[in-house]
Amino acid sequence: MTEKIQPKTNRDGGEIEIKPYKRDFAHSYSCGVFPTCELAMNKPELLKKIIVTKNSLENAGVVKLRSIADDLGVPFVTDDKVMARIYPKENVYAAGVFMKSFESPERNRNHVVLVNPSDMGNLGTIMRTMAAFEMFDLALITPCCDVYNPKTVRASMGAVFRLRISQYESFEDYLKQLEKSGGDECGRNFFPFMLDGRPIEEVDFGSGKAATLILGNEAAGLPESFLGVGKPVRIMHADTVDSLNLPVAAAIGIYRLRKNNY
Amino acid sequence: MTEKIQPKTNRDGGEIEIKPYKRDFAHSYSCGVFPTCELAMNKPELLKKIIVTKNSLENAGVVKLRSIADDLGVPFVTDDKVMARIYPKENVYAAGVFMKSFESPERNRNHVVLVNPSDMGNLGTIMRTMAAFEMFDLALITPCCDVYNPKTVRASMGAVFRLRISQYESFEDYLKQLEKSGGDECGRNFFPFMLDGRPIEEVDFGSGKAATLILGNEAAGLPESFLGVGKPVRIMHADTVDSLNLPVAAAIGIYRLRKNNY
Repeated sequence: MTEKIQPKTNRDGGEIEIKPYKRDFAHSYSCGVFPTCELAMNKPELLKKIIVTKNSLENAGVVKLRSIADDLGVPFVTDDKVMARIYPKENVYAAGVFMKSFESPERNRNHVVLVNPSDMGNLGTIMRTMAAFEMFDLALITPCCDVYNPKTVRASMGAVFRLRISQYESFEDYLKQLEKSGGDECGRNFFPFMLDGRPIEEVDFGSGKAATLILGNEAAGLPESFLGVGKPVRIMHADTVDSLNLPVAAAIGIYRLRKNNY
Repeated sequence: MTEKIQPKTNRDGGEIEIKPYKRDFAHSYSCGVFPTCELAMNKPELLKKIIVTKNSLENAGVVKLRSIADDLGVPFVTDDKVMARIYPKENVYAAGVFMKSFESPERNRNHVVLVNPSDMGNLGTIMRTMAAFEMFDLALITPCCDVYNPKTVRASMGAVFRLRISQYESFEDYLKQLEKSGGDECGRNFFPFMLDGRPIEEVDFGSGKAATLILGNEAAGLPESFLGVGKPVRIMHADTVDSLNLPVAAAIGIYRLRKNNY
Protein backbone atom coordinates (compact mmCIF):
# COMPACT_ATOMS: atom_id res chain seq x y z
CA MET A 1 0.00 0.00 0.00
CA THR A 2 2.98 2.24 0.46
CA GLU A 3 2.78 3.01 -3.25
CA LYS A 4 -0.44 4.95 -2.83
CA ILE A 5 0.98 7.89 -0.95
CA GLN A 6 4.19 9.20 -2.39
CA PRO A 7 6.08 11.74 -0.35
CA LYS A 8 6.06 15.14 -1.99
CA THR A 9 8.96 16.18 0.15
CA ASN A 10 12.42 14.83 0.47
CA ARG A 11 12.52 12.17 3.23
CA ASP A 12 16.25 12.48 3.63
CA GLY A 13 16.58 15.54 5.75
CA GLY A 14 15.08 17.93 3.19
CA GLU A 15 13.11 20.81 4.61
CA ILE A 16 9.38 20.12 5.08
CA GLU A 17 7.25 23.22 4.89
CA ILE A 18 5.07 23.32 8.00
CA LYS A 19 1.60 24.39 6.89
CA PRO A 20 -1.87 23.66 8.24
CA TYR A 21 -2.52 19.99 7.55
CA LYS A 22 -4.18 18.75 4.38
CA ARG A 23 -5.01 15.15 3.54
CA ASP A 24 -2.88 15.05 0.40
CA PHE A 25 0.31 15.93 2.27
CA ALA A 26 2.90 13.18 2.50
CA HIS A 27 3.55 14.28 6.08
CA SER A 28 1.40 15.00 9.13
CA TYR A 29 1.69 16.14 12.75
CA SER A 30 1.44 14.34 16.07
CA CYS A 31 0.09 16.92 18.51
CA GLY A 32 0.67 16.58 22.23
CA VAL A 33 3.60 15.34 24.31
CA PHE A 34 2.32 11.77 24.74
CA PRO A 35 1.48 11.07 21.08
CA THR A 36 4.81 12.59 20.04
CA CYS A 37 6.68 10.32 22.48
CA GLU A 38 4.80 7.36 20.99
CA LEU A 39 5.88 8.48 17.52
CA ALA A 40 9.51 8.98 18.48
CA MET A 41 9.77 5.66 20.28
CA ASN A 42 7.81 3.46 17.85
CA LYS A 43 8.41 5.01 14.44
CA PRO A 44 11.66 7.00 14.83
CA GLU A 45 12.40 6.52 11.11
CA LEU A 46 9.28 8.56 10.22
CA LEU A 47 9.99 11.45 12.60
CA LYS A 48 11.40 14.53 10.86
CA LYS A 49 11.19 17.29 13.43
CA ILE A 50 9.96 18.07 16.93
CA ILE A 51 8.36 21.44 17.65
CA VAL A 52 7.64 22.69 21.16
CA THR A 53 6.23 25.87 22.66
CA LYS A 54 8.45 28.32 24.54
CA ASN A 55 6.71 27.92 27.89
CA SER A 56 6.97 24.13 27.82
CA LEU A 57 10.73 23.68 28.00
CA GLU A 58 10.71 22.57 31.62
CA ASN A 59 7.83 20.13 31.23
CA ALA A 60 9.07 16.62 32.02
CA GLY A 61 7.64 15.17 28.80
CA VAL A 62 9.23 17.90 26.71
CA VAL A 63 12.60 17.32 28.41
CA LYS A 64 12.26 13.66 27.46
CA LEU A 65 11.40 14.59 23.86
CA ARG A 66 14.47 16.83 23.66
CA SER A 67 16.69 13.99 24.75
CA ILE A 68 15.05 11.62 22.23
CA ALA A 69 15.54 14.21 19.48
CA ASP A 70 19.22 14.47 20.41
CA ASP A 71 19.63 10.69 20.30
CA LEU A 72 17.91 10.45 16.93
CA GLY A 73 19.59 13.50 15.42
CA VAL A 74 16.18 15.02 14.71
CA PRO A 75 15.75 18.83 14.72
CA PHE A 76 14.18 20.15 17.95
CA VAL A 77 12.78 23.67 17.60
CA THR A 78 10.82 26.14 19.67
CA ASP A 79 8.11 27.85 17.65
CA ASP A 80 4.80 29.01 19.16
CA LYS A 81 3.49 30.44 15.89
CA VAL A 82 3.95 27.26 13.90
CA MET A 83 2.36 25.24 16.70
CA ALA A 84 -0.73 27.42 16.67
CA ARG A 85 -0.91 27.01 12.90
CA ILE A 86 -0.81 23.22 12.83
CA TYR A 87 -3.10 22.57 15.80
CA PRO A 88 -5.22 25.66 16.45
CA LYS A 89 -7.96 23.85 18.40
CA GLU A 90 -6.16 23.15 21.60
CA ASN A 91 -3.06 24.21 23.49
CA VAL A 92 -0.41 21.54 23.14
CA TYR A 93 3.19 21.67 24.31
CA ALA A 94 4.77 19.59 21.58
CA ALA A 95 4.23 18.23 18.09
CA GLY A 96 6.15 15.88 15.83
CA VAL A 97 6.40 16.22 12.07
CA PHE A 98 6.30 12.77 10.51
CA MET A 99 6.05 11.05 7.13
CA LYS A 100 2.89 9.00 6.61
CA SER A 101 3.44 5.31 6.19
CA PHE A 102 1.34 2.27 5.27
CA GLU A 103 2.26 -1.39 5.52
CA SER A 104 0.48 -4.65 4.80
CA PRO A 105 -1.09 -6.60 7.67
CA GLU A 106 0.96 -9.46 9.04
CA ARG A 107 -0.29 -12.92 8.13
CA ASN A 108 -1.35 -15.19 10.98
CA ARG A 109 -2.11 -12.28 13.28
CA ASN A 110 -5.53 -11.00 14.31
CA HIS A 111 -6.73 -8.10 12.16
CA VAL A 112 -9.37 -5.40 12.37
CA VAL A 113 -10.94 -4.29 9.08
CA LEU A 114 -12.98 -1.08 9.18
CA VAL A 115 -15.21 -0.55 6.15
CA ASN A 116 -15.75 3.17 5.43
CA PRO A 117 -15.33 4.60 8.93
CA SER A 118 -16.23 8.28 8.82
CA ASP A 119 -15.36 9.76 12.21
CA MET A 120 -11.75 10.56 13.10
CA GLY A 121 -12.40 10.45 16.85
CA ASN A 122 -13.90 6.96 16.50
CA LEU A 123 -11.02 5.75 14.35
CA GLY A 124 -8.48 7.06 16.85
CA THR A 125 -10.30 5.45 19.78
CA ILE A 126 -10.41 2.07 17.99
CA MET A 127 -6.65 2.22 17.37
CA ARG A 128 -6.07 3.00 21.05
CA THR A 129 -8.16 -0.05 22.04
CA MET A 130 -6.33 -2.26 19.53
CA ALA A 131 -2.93 -1.33 20.92
CA ALA A 132 -4.18 -1.87 24.49
CA PHE A 133 -5.23 -5.43 23.67
CA GLU A 134 -2.26 -6.10 21.38
CA MET A 135 -3.99 -6.28 18.03
CA PHE A 136 -1.58 -4.48 15.75
CA ASP A 137 -3.01 -4.88 12.24
CA LEU A 138 -5.63 -2.45 10.96
CA ALA A 139 -6.95 -2.43 7.38
CA LEU A 140 -9.15 0.44 6.21
CA ILE A 141 -11.51 0.16 3.26
CA THR A 142 -11.90 3.47 1.40
CA PRO A 143 -13.67 5.84 1.29
CA CYS A 144 -12.81 6.45 4.90
CA CYS A 145 -11.74 9.26 7.16
CA ASP A 146 -8.09 10.24 7.31
CA VAL A 147 -6.10 7.95 9.60
CA TYR A 148 -3.19 10.41 9.68
CA ASN A 149 -5.15 13.61 10.24
CA PRO A 150 -3.73 15.23 13.41
CA LYS A 151 -7.17 14.83 15.04
CA THR A 152 -7.17 11.07 14.44
CA VAL A 153 -3.59 10.76 15.65
CA ARG A 154 -4.48 12.67 18.82
CA ALA A 155 -7.66 10.62 19.43
CA SER A 156 -5.48 7.51 19.21
CA MET A 157 -3.12 9.00 21.84
CA GLY A 158 -0.34 7.99 19.48
CA ALA A 159 -1.42 4.33 19.30
CA VAL A 160 -1.48 4.78 15.52
CA PHE A 161 2.33 4.55 15.66
CA ARG A 162 2.15 1.07 17.18
CA LEU A 163 0.01 -0.40 14.41
CA ARG A 164 0.52 -1.67 10.88
CA ILE A 165 -2.01 0.34 8.89
CA SER A 166 -3.09 -0.54 5.38
CA GLN A 167 -5.72 0.92 3.10
CA TYR A 168 -7.66 -0.80 0.28
CA GLU A 169 -10.27 0.24 -2.22
CA SER A 170 -12.37 -2.84 -1.49
CA PHE A 171 -12.60 -5.79 0.91
CA GLU A 172 -11.64 -8.02 -2.03
CA ASP A 173 -8.37 -6.10 -2.36
CA TYR A 174 -7.66 -6.84 1.31
CA LEU A 175 -8.31 -10.55 0.66
CA LYS A 176 -6.01 -10.47 -2.38
CA GLN A 177 -3.28 -8.95 -0.26
CA LEU A 178 -3.74 -11.78 2.28
CA GLU A 179 -3.33 -14.36 -0.48
CA LYS A 180 -0.22 -12.66 -1.80
CA SER A 181 1.36 -12.79 1.64
CA GLY A 182 0.54 -16.48 1.96
CA GLY A 183 -2.00 -15.98 4.74
CA ASP A 184 -4.83 -17.48 2.74
CA GLU A 185 -8.52 -17.27 3.64
CA CYS A 186 -8.78 -20.85 4.84
CA GLY A 187 -6.27 -20.29 7.60
CA ARG A 188 -8.29 -17.46 9.10
CA ASN A 189 -11.73 -16.78 10.60
CA PHE A 190 -13.68 -13.75 9.40
CA PHE A 191 -16.21 -12.18 11.75
CA PRO A 192 -18.30 -9.41 10.16
CA PHE A 193 -20.30 -7.50 12.80
CA MET A 194 -23.89 -7.37 11.51
CA LEU A 195 -27.40 -7.12 12.92
CA ASP A 196 -28.24 -10.46 11.29
CA GLY A 197 -25.23 -12.24 12.76
CA ARG A 198 -25.11 -14.94 15.42
CA PRO A 199 -24.77 -13.77 19.01
CA ILE A 200 -21.07 -13.16 19.57
CA GLU A 201 -21.48 -14.81 22.97
CA GLU A 202 -22.06 -18.15 21.19
CA VAL A 203 -19.09 -17.84 18.85
CA ASP A 204 -15.80 -19.50 19.64
CA PHE A 205 -13.16 -16.94 18.82
CA GLY A 206 -10.39 -19.04 20.28
CA SER A 207 -10.36 -21.69 17.60
CA GLY A 208 -6.64 -21.79 16.99
CA LYS A 209 -6.91 -19.65 13.88
CA ALA A 210 -6.16 -15.98 13.52
CA ALA A 211 -9.26 -13.81 13.14
CA THR A 212 -10.35 -10.78 11.19
CA LEU A 213 -12.99 -8.59 12.89
CA ILE A 214 -14.90 -6.56 10.29
CA LEU A 215 -16.96 -3.50 11.24
CA GLY A 216 -18.93 -1.14 9.03
CA ASN A 217 -19.62 2.55 8.82
CA GLU A 218 -21.11 4.40 11.83
CA ALA A 219 -24.43 5.12 10.13
CA ALA A 220 -24.80 2.35 7.55
CA GLY A 221 -23.10 -0.67 9.12
CA LEU A 222 -21.77 -3.32 6.74
CA PRO A 223 -23.33 -3.95 3.31
CA GLU A 224 -25.49 -7.10 3.11
CA SER A 225 -22.87 -8.78 0.96
CA PHE A 226 -20.86 -9.43 4.15
CA LEU A 227 -23.49 -11.97 5.24
CA GLY A 228 -21.63 -14.29 2.86
CA VAL A 229 -18.26 -13.63 4.47
CA GLY A 230 -17.09 -15.97 7.25
CA LYS A 231 -19.25 -16.05 10.37
CA PRO A 232 -21.35 -12.89 10.83
CA VAL A 233 -21.71 -12.03 14.52
CA ARG A 234 -23.84 -9.68 16.56
CA ILE A 235 -23.27 -8.21 20.01
CA MET A 236 -26.60 -8.88 21.68
CA HIS A 237 -28.18 -5.82 23.25
CA ALA A 238 -31.64 -4.62 24.14
CA ASP A 239 -33.63 -2.78 21.47
CA THR A 240 -33.53 0.25 23.75
CA VAL A 241 -30.91 1.58 21.34
CA ASP A 242 -30.64 1.33 17.59
CA SER A 243 -27.01 0.21 17.70
CA LEU A 244 -23.86 0.45 19.75
CA ASN A 245 -21.36 3.23 19.21
CA LEU A 246 -18.71 1.97 16.74
CA PRO A 247 -15.67 2.12 19.08
CA VAL A 248 -17.76 0.40 21.79
CA ALA A 249 -18.73 -2.45 19.43
CA ALA A 250 -15.12 -2.76 18.27
CA ALA A 251 -13.88 -2.75 21.88
CA ILE A 252 -16.19 -5.56 22.93
CA GLY A 253 -15.10 -7.64 19.93
CA ILE A 254 -11.41 -6.93 20.51
CA TYR A 255 -11.76 -7.61 24.25
CA ARG A 256 -13.40 -10.98 23.60
CA LEU A 257 -10.75 -11.91 21.06
CA ARG A 258 -7.76 -10.82 23.12
CA LYS A 259 -6.95 -14.23 24.60
CA ASN A 260 -6.72 -15.82 21.18
CA ASN A 261 -3.48 -13.99 21.03
CA TYR A 262 -2.16 -14.08 17.47
CA MET B 1 -31.69 15.88 43.29
CA THR B 2 -34.63 17.45 41.52
CA GLU B 3 -34.33 20.37 43.89
CA LYS B 4 -31.05 21.47 42.32
CA ILE B 5 -32.44 22.62 39.01
CA GLN B 6 -35.60 24.62 39.32
CA PRO B 7 -37.46 25.43 36.13
CA LYS B 8 -37.27 29.12 35.31
CA THR B 9 -40.14 28.73 32.91
CA ASN B 10 -43.68 27.59 33.44
CA ARG B 11 -43.92 23.84 32.87
CA ASP B 12 -47.63 23.98 32.28
CA GLY B 13 -47.85 25.15 28.73
CA GLY B 14 -46.14 28.50 29.31
CA GLU B 15 -44.03 29.82 26.45
CA ILE B 16 -40.35 28.84 26.60
CA GLU B 17 -38.04 31.28 24.89
CA ILE B 18 -35.92 29.33 22.40
CA LYS B 19 -32.39 30.71 22.70
CA PRO B 20 -28.98 29.15 22.12
CA TYR B 21 -28.52 26.68 24.96
CA LYS B 22 -26.88 27.59 28.25
CA ARG B 23 -26.19 25.26 31.15
CA ASP B 24 -28.27 27.21 33.63
CA PHE B 25 -31.45 26.90 31.56
CA ALA B 26 -34.17 24.71 33.05
CA HIS B 27 -34.84 23.40 29.55
CA SER B 28 -32.70 21.97 26.74
CA TYR B 29 -32.97 20.63 23.18
CA SER B 30 -32.86 17.15 21.70
CA CYS B 31 -31.42 17.61 18.22
CA GLY B 32 -32.07 15.05 15.50
CA VAL B 33 -35.09 12.93 14.58
CA PHE B 34 -33.99 9.82 16.47
CA PRO B 35 -33.12 11.50 19.80
CA THR B 36 -36.37 13.49 19.61
CA CYS B 37 -38.38 10.29 19.08
CA GLU B 38 -36.62 8.81 22.11
CA LEU B 39 -37.58 11.88 24.12
CA ALA B 40 -41.21 11.82 22.99
CA MET B 41 -41.65 8.12 23.65
CA ASN B 42 -39.76 7.81 26.94
CA LYS B 43 -40.23 11.17 28.65
CA PRO B 44 -43.38 12.63 27.06
CA GLU B 45 -44.08 14.58 30.24
CA LEU B 46 -40.86 16.59 29.74
CA LEU B 47 -41.47 17.43 26.07
CA LYS B 48 -42.71 20.97 25.51
CA LYS B 49 -42.40 21.53 21.78
CA ILE B 50 -41.20 19.93 18.57
CA ILE B 51 -39.43 22.06 15.95
CA VAL B 52 -38.73 20.83 12.41
CA THR B 53 -37.18 22.33 9.29
CA LYS B 54 -39.30 23.18 6.26
CA ASN B 55 -37.65 20.72 3.91
CA SER B 56 -38.08 17.79 6.31
CA LEU B 57 -41.87 17.51 6.42
CA GLU B 58 -41.96 14.39 4.23
CA ASN B 59 -39.18 12.59 6.11
CA ALA B 60 -40.61 9.40 7.65
CA GLY B 61 -39.20 10.18 11.10
CA VAL B 62 -40.61 13.70 11.02
CA VAL B 63 -44.03 12.37 9.97
CA LYS B 64 -43.87 10.06 13.00
CA LEU B 65 -42.90 12.98 15.26
CA ARG B 66 -45.86 15.01 13.97
CA SER B 67 -48.23 12.21 14.83
CA ILE B 68 -46.67 11.81 18.31
CA ALA B 69 -46.98 15.58 18.85
CA ASP B 70 -50.68 15.38 17.90
CA ASP B 71 -51.25 12.50 20.32
CA LEU B 72 -49.50 14.31 23.15
CA GLY B 73 -51.00 17.71 22.41
CA VAL B 74 -47.52 19.19 22.09
CA PRO B 75 -46.91 22.17 19.74
CA PHE B 76 -45.31 21.14 16.43
CA VAL B 77 -43.74 24.03 14.54
CA THR B 78 -41.71 24.59 11.38
CA ASP B 79 -38.88 27.06 11.98
CA ASP B 80 -35.55 26.88 10.13
CA LYS B 81 -34.14 29.96 11.84
CA VAL B 82 -34.71 28.73 15.37
CA MET B 83 -33.27 25.33 14.45
CA ALA B 84 -30.06 26.92 13.17
CA ARG B 85 -29.86 28.93 16.39
CA ILE B 86 -30.12 26.00 18.78
CA TYR B 87 -27.90 23.55 16.87
CA PRO B 88 -25.65 25.48 14.51
CA LYS B 89 -23.03 22.73 14.14
CA GLU B 90 -24.91 20.25 12.03
CA ASN B 91 -27.99 20.07 9.83
CA VAL B 92 -30.76 18.33 11.71
CA TYR B 93 -34.39 17.89 10.66
CA ALA B 94 -36.01 18.01 14.07
CA ALA B 95 -35.49 19.08 17.65
CA GLY B 96 -37.48 18.73 20.84
CA VAL B 97 -37.65 21.34 23.59
CA PHE B 98 -37.69 19.58 26.95
CA MET B 99 -37.48 20.32 30.67
CA LYS B 100 -34.43 18.90 32.42
CA SER B 101 -35.12 16.28 35.04
CA PHE B 102 -33.16 14.39 37.68
CA GLU B 103 -34.24 11.40 39.73
CA SER B 104 -32.60 9.21 42.34
CA PRO B 105 -31.15 5.83 41.32
CA GLU B 106 -33.36 2.85 41.99
CA ARG B 107 -32.25 0.65 44.87
CA ASN B 108 -31.33 -2.93 44.06
CA ARG B 109 -30.48 -2.12 40.45
CA ASN B 110 -27.02 -1.91 38.92
CA HIS B 111 -25.66 1.64 38.83
CA VAL B 112 -22.90 3.51 37.02
CA VAL B 113 -21.23 6.34 38.94
CA LEU B 114 -19.04 8.71 36.92
CA VAL B 115 -16.75 10.89 39.00
CA ASN B 116 -16.05 14.22 37.26
CA PRO B 117 -16.44 13.19 33.61
CA SER B 118 -15.37 16.11 31.44
CA ASP B 119 -16.23 15.21 27.85
CA MET B 120 -19.82 15.45 26.60
CA GLY B 121 -19.24 13.01 23.74
CA ASN B 122 -17.89 10.43 26.18
CA LEU B 123 -20.77 10.93 28.59
CA GLY B 124 -23.31 10.53 25.77
CA THR B 125 -21.60 7.37 24.50
CA ILE B 126 -21.61 5.83 27.99
CA MET B 127 -25.35 6.49 28.34
CA ARG B 128 -25.95 4.84 24.95
CA THR B 129 -24.02 1.76 26.10
CA MET B 130 -25.90 1.66 29.43
CA ALA B 131 -29.28 1.68 27.69
CA ALA B 132 -28.10 -1.02 25.25
CA PHE B 133 -27.21 -3.33 28.12
CA GLU B 134 -30.17 -2.29 30.28
CA MET B 135 -28.39 -0.45 33.04
CA PHE B 136 -30.69 2.46 33.68
CA ASP B 137 -29.23 4.26 36.70
CA LEU B 138 -26.48 6.85 36.24
CA ALA B 139 -25.12 9.02 39.06
CA LEU B 140 -22.77 11.89 38.24
CA ILE B 141 -20.37 13.40 40.77
CA THR B 142 -19.81 17.11 40.18
CA PRO B 143 -17.92 18.97 38.82
CA CYS B 144 -18.81 17.25 35.59
CA CYS B 145 -19.79 18.11 32.07
CA ASP B 146 -23.40 18.94 31.30
CA VAL B 147 -25.53 15.81 30.87
CA TYR B 148 -28.32 17.82 29.23
CA ASN B 149 -26.23 19.88 26.84
CA PRO B 150 -27.61 19.27 23.31
CA LYS B 151 -24.21 17.78 22.35
CA THR B 152 -24.38 15.22 25.17
CA VAL B 153 -28.00 14.39 24.34
CA ARG B 154 -27.07 13.86 20.68
CA ALA B 155 -23.99 11.75 21.51
CA SER B 156 -26.32 9.55 23.59
CA MET B 157 -28.63 9.21 20.56
CA GLY B 158 -31.44 9.99 23.00
CA ALA B 159 -30.51 7.18 25.41
CA VAL B 160 -30.38 9.89 28.10
CA PHE B 161 -34.20 9.79 28.08
CA ARG B 162 -34.20 6.10 29.04
CA LEU B 163 -32.08 6.57 32.17
CA ARG B 164 -32.60 7.78 35.70
CA ILE B 165 -29.96 10.48 36.08
CA SER B 166 -28.85 11.93 39.38
CA GLN B 167 -26.13 14.36 40.32
CA TYR B 168 -24.23 14.66 43.63
CA GLU B 169 -21.54 16.91 45.01
CA SER B 170 -19.58 13.95 46.35
CA PHE B 171 -19.54 10.16 46.32
CA GLU B 172 -20.54 10.28 49.98
CA ASP B 173 -23.71 12.12 48.99
CA TYR B 174 -24.50 9.29 46.57
CA LEU B 175 -24.03 6.76 49.39
CA LYS B 176 -26.26 8.80 51.70
CA GLN B 177 -28.96 8.81 49.05
CA LEU B 178 -28.67 5.00 48.81
CA GLU B 179 -29.14 4.71 52.56
CA LYS B 180 -32.16 6.98 52.50
CA SER B 181 -33.80 4.81 49.89
CA GLY B 182 -33.14 1.67 51.93
CA GLY B 183 -30.61 0.26 49.46
CA ASP B 184 -27.81 0.18 52.00
CA GLU B 185 -24.15 -0.36 51.22
CA CYS B 186 -24.06 -3.92 52.50
CA GLY B 187 -26.58 -5.07 49.95
CA ARG B 188 -24.48 -3.86 47.06
CA ASN B 189 -21.02 -4.42 45.52
CA PHE B 190 -18.91 -1.40 44.61
CA PHE B 191 -16.35 -1.71 41.82
CA PRO B 192 -14.11 1.34 41.40
CA PHE B 193 -12.08 1.10 38.16
CA MET B 194 -8.47 1.84 39.15
CA LEU B 195 -4.98 1.03 37.96
CA ASP B 196 -4.25 -0.61 41.31
CA GLY B 197 -7.36 -2.80 41.20
CA ARG B 198 -7.63 -6.57 40.81
CA PRO B 199 -7.99 -7.84 37.24
CA ILE B 200 -11.67 -7.55 36.38
CA GLU B 201 -11.39 -10.96 34.74
CA GLU B 202 -10.92 -12.52 38.20
CA VAL B 203 -13.83 -10.71 39.81
CA ASP B 204 -17.21 -12.35 40.14
CA PHE B 205 -19.72 -9.72 39.17
CA GLY B 206 -22.62 -12.16 39.29
CA SER B 207 -22.71 -12.58 43.05
CA GLY B 208 -26.43 -12.09 43.53
CA LYS B 209 -26.01 -8.50 44.64
CA ALA B 210 -26.59 -5.36 42.64
CA ALA B 211 -23.39 -3.55 41.64
CA THR B 212 -22.14 -0.02 41.29
CA LEU B 213 -19.44 0.52 38.65
CA ILE B 214 -17.40 3.64 39.47
CA LEU B 215 -15.22 5.34 36.85
CA GLY B 216 -13.12 8.48 37.17
CA ASN B 217 -12.24 11.48 35.05
CA GLU B 218 -10.72 10.99 31.56
CA ALA B 219 -7.35 12.47 32.50
CA ALA B 220 -7.06 11.88 36.24
CA GLY B 221 -8.94 8.62 36.86
CA LEU B 222 -10.34 8.06 40.35
CA PRO B 223 -8.75 9.64 43.46
CA GLU B 224 -6.73 7.19 45.59
CA SER B 225 -9.39 7.33 48.29
CA PHE B 226 -11.47 4.94 46.17
CA LEU B 227 -8.98 2.15 46.93
CA GLY B 228 -10.90 1.89 50.20
CA VAL B 229 -14.27 1.55 48.48
CA GLY B 230 -15.59 -1.95 47.73
CA LYS B 231 -13.46 -4.04 45.36
CA PRO B 232 -11.23 -1.96 43.08
CA VAL B 233 -10.90 -3.57 39.64
CA ARG B 234 -8.70 -3.10 36.62
CA ILE B 235 -9.24 -4.04 32.99
CA MET B 236 -5.98 -5.73 32.14
CA HIS B 237 -4.30 -4.39 29.04
CA ALA B 238 -0.80 -4.17 27.64
CA ASP B 239 1.30 -1.17 28.62
CA THR B 240 1.31 -0.18 24.95
CA VAL B 241 -1.21 2.46 25.98
CA ASP B 242 -1.42 4.59 29.08
CA SER B 243 -5.10 3.82 29.64
CA LEU B 244 -8.27 2.87 27.83
CA ASN B 245 -10.62 5.49 26.50
CA LEU B 246 -13.29 6.15 29.19
CA PRO B 247 -16.36 4.95 27.20
CA VAL B 248 -14.39 1.83 26.18
CA ALA B 249 -13.52 1.02 29.81
CA ALA B 250 -17.13 1.66 30.85
CA ALA B 251 -18.43 -0.51 28.00
CA ILE B 252 -16.25 -3.47 28.95
CA GLY B 253 -17.39 -3.18 32.58
CA ILE B 254 -21.05 -2.83 31.62
CA TYR B 255 -20.79 -5.69 29.12
CA ARG B 256 -19.28 -8.01 31.73
CA LEU B 257 -21.93 -7.04 34.28
CA ARG B 258 -24.91 -7.34 31.92
CA LYS B 259 -25.88 -10.89 32.85
CA ASN B 260 -26.12 -10.01 36.53
CA ASN B 261 -29.26 -8.31 35.43
CA TYR B 262 -30.52 -6.14 38.28
